[in-house]
Amino acid sequence: MTQPLIRHAEPSDYRPVIAVVDEWWGGRRMANMLPKLFFVHFRNTSFVAEYNDQLVGFVIGFVSQTFLTEAYIHFVGVHPEFRKGGLARMLYEKFFAAVETLGCRTVRCVTSPVNKGSISFHHPIVEDYDGEGEDRVLFSKNLNDMRIERHA
Amino acid sequence: MTQPLIRHAEPSDYRPVIAVVDEWWGGRRMANMLPKLFFVHFRNTSFVAEYNDQLVGFVIGFVSQTFLTEAYIHFVGVHPEFRKGGLARMLYEKFFAAVETLGCRTVRCVTSPVNKGSISFHHPIVEDYDGEGEDRVLFSKNLNDMRIERHA
Repeated sequence: MTQPLIRHAEPSDYRPVIAVVDEWWGGRRMANMLPKLFFVHFRNTSFVAEYNDQLVGFVIGFVSQTFLTEAYIHFVGVHPEFRKGGLARMLYEKFFAAVETLGCRTVRCVTSPVNKGSISFHHPIVEDYDGEGEDRVLFSKNLNDMRIERHA
Repeated sequence: MTQPLIRHAEPSDYRPVIAVVDEWWGGRRMANMLPKLFFVHFRNTSFVAEYNDQLVGFVIGFVSQTFLTEAYIHFVGVHPEFRKGGLARMLYEKFFAAVETLGCRTVRCVTSPVNKGSISFHHPIVEDYDGEGEDRVLFSKNLNDMRIERHA
């Protein structure tokens, strides 16, 4: 099996992503949290993965404008049939490489406690982080650690 | 009457803003479109206005990472009792000054067709811009035009 192709996100990727995002998240209403602006104004740090011209994954992120050496991942999604094959890692690697070039040393992301697959018990849950009833788990890693982990 | 005080947005402003945003938008569900990340990672281009320590307005925006000389306004909100007093203009001016310092020459924003007050008939409506049923109106101005308009 050939590898999915990963390329920078474009505004025209917005509709295909929005069309699948709720389904990929197991039915949660996610689309409102992903306005088109990310596909317009953060293309250099956002990527989509395609396999046979079909969308199979994406990562949407940016460089913090408050903390110039920090990058932030807003959304990462992988088609259910393409999970456990390393595609999420490939998307992360593309993002890490892009933000490292832009001077970042740390990557942060925030996820919801329902994402049990991506949360270790060591990460505290912050209640109401994204509004009432919207608890979140906050992650951060520095890019050197990422590199070590990748190569281990 | 003294002027509202305008200062940079902080993460602690997130809850007060989210608590009022649906009401300020006449009951529309807006809170999901404004995740906390803007109050963390785009503080240098986001501002809140306070009057007697009460939140009365805010502007949330950023510099495009795709187009480095463009800035984008994601949200502008003013307390219903403080409208028509020039507060929105004061918030825009703060934003324009901040992004001009960062090298921007153009400001863009997107609004919903229900915001009749902010739309002239010359702006086309883009159907489904932010997903199915989410029509938007796109604005853009260059900062020199803004200056002329301000001083006229």
